[in-house]
Amino acid sequence: MFEEPHLRPRAANFQPLTPVSFLTRAAEAHPHRTAVIWRDATWDYAGLHAMAVRMAEALREAGIGRGDVVSIVARNRPEMLAAHFAVPALGAVLSTLNIRLDAGALGYILAHSESRLLLCDPACTGAAGEAARATGVRMLMLADPGEGPAPDRLDLLTGGSAAPPLDASAVTEEWQPICLNYTSGTTGAPKGAVYHHRGAFLNAMGNALTLGFGAATSYLWTLPMFHCNGWSHTWAVTAAGGTHVCLDAVEPAAIFDLIARHGVSHMCCAPVVLYMLLADPAAEAHRARLAAGEAGRVAVGTGGAAPSAHLIEQLGTLGFELTHLYGLTESYGPASICQTGEALADASNERKAAWLARQGYRHATSGTIRIAASGGAGGDAPPDGETQGEILLRGNTLMAGYYRDAAATERAFAGGWFHTGDLGVRDTDGAIRVTDREKDVIISGGENIASIEVEGVLHRHPAVLLAAVVAMPSAKWGELPCAFVELKPGREAAPDELEAFCRDQLAAFKVPRHYRFGELPKTATGKIQKFLLRQRLTDEGE
Amino acid sequence: MFEEPHLRPRAANFQPLTPVSFLTRAAEAHPHRTAVIWRDATWDYAGLHAMAVRMAEALREAGIGRGDVVSIVARNRPEMLAAHFAVPALGAVLSTLNIRLDAGALGYILAHSESRLLLCDPACTGAAGEAARATGVRMLMLADPGEGPAPDRLDLLTGGSAAPPLDASAVTEEWQPICLNYTSGTTGAPKGAVYHHRGAFLNAMGNALTLGFGAATSYLWTLPMFHCNGWSHTWAVTAAGGTHVCLDAVEPAAIFDLIARHGVSHMCCAPVVLYMLLADPAAEAHRARLAAGEAGRVAVGTGGAAPSAHLIEQLGTLGFELTHLYGLTESYGPASICQTGEALADASNERKAAWLARQGYRHATSGTIRIAASGGAGGDAPPDGETQGEILLRGNTLMAGYYRDAAATERAFAGGWFHTGDLGVRDTDGAIRVTDREKDVIISGGENIASIEVEGVLHRHPAVLLAAVVAMPSAKWGELPCAFVELKPGREAAPDELEAFCRDQLAAFKVPRHYRFGELPKTATGKIQKFLLRQRLTDEGE
Repeated sequence: MFEEPHLRPRAANFQPLTPVSFLTRAAEAHPHRTAVIWRDATWDYAGLHAMAVRMAEALREAGIGRGDVVSIVARNRPEMLAAHFAVPALGAVLSTLNIRLDAGALGYILAHSESRLLLCDPACTGAAGEAARATGVRMLMLADPGEGPAPDRLDLLTGGSAAPPLDASAVTEEWQPICLNYTSGTTGAPKGAVYHHRGAFLNAMGNALTLGFGAATSYLWTLPMFHCNGWSHTWAVTAAGGTHVCLDAVEPAAIFDLIARHGVSHMCCAPVVLYMLLADPAAEAHRARLAAGEAGRVAVGTGGAAPSAHLIEQLGTLGFELTHLYGLTESYGPASICQTGEALADASNERKAAWLARQGYRHATSGTIRIAASGGAGGDAPPDGETQGEILLRGNTLMAGYYRDAAATERAFAGGWFHTGDLGVRDTDGAIRVTDREKDVIISGGENIASIEVEGVLHRHPAVLLAAVVAMPSAKWGELPCAFVELKPGREAAPDELEAFCRDQLAAFKVPRHYRFGELPKTATGKIQKFLLRQRLTDEGE
Repeated sequence: MFEEPHLRPRAANFQPLTPVSFLTRAAEAHPHRTAVIWRDATWDYAGLHAMAVRMAEALREAGIGRGDVVSIVARNRPEMLAAHFAVPALGAVLSTLNIRLDAGALGYILAHSESRLLLCDPACTGAAGEAARATGVRMLMLADPGEGPAPDRLDLLTGGSAAPPLDASAVTEEWQPICLNYTSGTTGAPKGAVYHHRGAFLNAMGNALTLGFGAATSYLWTLPMFHCNGWSHTWAVTAAGGTHVCLDAVEPAAIFDLIARHGVSHMCCAPVVLYMLLADPAAEAHRARLAAGEAGRVAVGTGGAAPSAHLIEQLGTLGFELTHLYGLTESYGPASICQTGEALADASNERKAAWLARQGYRHATSGTIRIAASGGAGGDAPPDGETQGEILLRGNTLMAGYYRDAAATERAFAGGWFHTGDLGVRDTDGAIRVTDREKDVIISGGENIASIEVEGVLHRHPAVLLAAVVAMPSAKWGELPCAFVELKPGREAAPDELEAFCRDQLAAFKVPRHYRFGELPKTATGKIQKFLLRQRLTDEGE
């Protein structure tokens, strides 16, 4: 039954899923709704769409077509958003580059990705220009506002909002590559995760539904769009018809100002940004504006370190409500989500923190999450909140694979599941909790120490801003935990004091005996680069 | 580039899209959130999931497997909702039957669909039992609440909320059929539109995003779930994690009561239900509750006749905010949507009515809408708000085809587009407006008369509840418009008065000279059956 040939897919009832459709639909259905705000300028959806059409035309003229890689190094500005639609519409592949990388790293990615063209924000000229020259990749410079016409600049900010529909006929298959995202390099040489149209479409829909994006959403771009395409929110906010509020640099005063001025409802950022906001003198004025009704509450998505009760309490005074997201470059950003929801609305901050410290549950389009039992038997770790195993993912929002790296791809997908390299447990209520990166586990005297657990204790110490615990080689124990600590400005804490603080809350073998103080090395997205800390210890030992 | 074999789809990164995943995820991520309310009972998502698991087990025991058609004739009750997940999880195909059909029509569908089993609501036993006996289809009767155990009843309402995850491994392809929806028979013998998992998943996501369904949604089931699977809202509300509020029968007092009692935020219904609510004495008490804050505002989705300014104004007093939806059985329900949005928040009711009288724009997942230029040249009618053409659809939320009807399928999909059979225009702002069903156009003296336009005028007359205008054969003119009018209770209007009323607002050739009064024949979903009216005129003439 139902095998009749006339029930087959055909042009009328089967079209490739692509997030490009979100922009063409928005321009059609609500052309006059505000799409992007940047500095003092505003573009409605017709205007953003026309910008994407102009960009696609310029790229086509530059010879870009199906399967070509177009790189972009830019801050969160309108053209960066437009590129997320213009480049895929041509069937080309967008490679967003981290603006804080040096020329060497940028050059590596330009060369590895076989990039055909580099779109460049004038603010990012230095290292990017050097990398482009070194690799022979053609560079096309974006024009800054008010620059006026210049032959060597691509001015997409002016030109009005009238345009023919963005032609996406080059998108013939939903499995076609849409973006190339290089991993952030916490573990060595960056790998290029290939995203496809289907996954980008679905992750955007799932994020929009789970985070509650809608027409009234005002989304502040504290998160760089170059980071996993802004966790797919470049597409998700557009699908929902919300407003993108751009931000030149992550500065507290600017963030608080934009929240009040544009009625920001949502933002996402690394925890380090939240600490920065709390520590800034402008926070006090924001609290006053909040009390006076001149600023509203903001739903904040964050990922990485688990938020402490103290952090949640403090963020509450700023009107921030936390959602904890977990994902990787390979999963298009968020794969799981943890929200307190109505059930915990009146709970204590301790209870909320305990809840939000977990990575939670898959979102509406992100597939299945497993905690693999160790030992290779193939089963799941029991949902007891204690038995640790590797977190495995399966679904429609995982990369196609690593570009030009078949071996790493096969390793990542071994056994039919994506291996996150993170260790976790499943609680009795089914929520997952990341216990550590597999490679960050410290093995001391045969006992496993989860660096995250020790860091969690250190983060509760009032003088500690950030802490990272890594393995220090030890002739006697194999490894010993060593804590790298960044103190809050103007605060002090001696190693003895921190050790005693840990001893009160941890088994003895987990307590760090060695401490190093100073600023921690971070990636552009606020992740601590533990491999550099391990390198320091190795250098010390030599 | 990107043609490397290791970038292929595989089990880890490609899974068939299926709305079954919405329920398994809900049971995993928020098992204790309220899923369904019926009468005085409540099921949380764990409970609804367990009900679906029990139903799937019972069906498997009854021999149901991949590709088998399972029919259900039931009001909007929890098992009806559970069937939308349990049957597809088995790889079987759900055929929901209109509870108001007679035994002959039910028998036709049971036989045509080659149904293997009929699940039956005890309230629907009569005609359904007769049809099952006549066709030899096995009938499985659902148990009513509190009936206690009985050997010939399937009790799914009790049994607790613990269950292993609903096994959907029989869903191996997203193009697999999920439902069979027979057209409502306004045009003759019903045809069975085959829905697939992919389309159901996508239409649910698009509806949820466009209508703003979320965790706080309380959705009142005024719309029958048997009608296009409740426009996909069976799946959409579940995807969003909202609450389904069931309703035994569409009675104004019960509707107003549930709105207040369960904080209803959304409902959908045919316009005829809205007229009924407004005309009911209970409306007054609802207005008082609304004023006292004991009932909230409700977003109401409706389709069919265009709402008049008067209707919008009156609905406003009940706290109802209208969204105009347009679609067909073949498009999984809504394909386009018209909302007033923020831009019109402060507009006059006349302005809102003019806006909402249109069918608007495609929603986030529904593809492309075209108005074909007449004459077969293949182009589009110009967007001038005047030039009429057939409305064509293309996208991912269109049926696979008609079951066991290759000829009708090929006709429907001729030229690579789905032919709606509706005539429409595109306004200068891109919105579409249905001007008439192709076969409802009246051709009088060589001039086309859109029956919808004439009906729109009659609906503005204060004594008219419903009006339908059809062609009456005329020796002189070919056809003449004849108006069938259902008056409001206690109101009167003479033909002369209605004719004069029309003459003020219509070209002379469009004004009906013939009037018939009385209740209009409607389908179970409130659509007026014009073919029966035309039949009456033919009978009169003989």
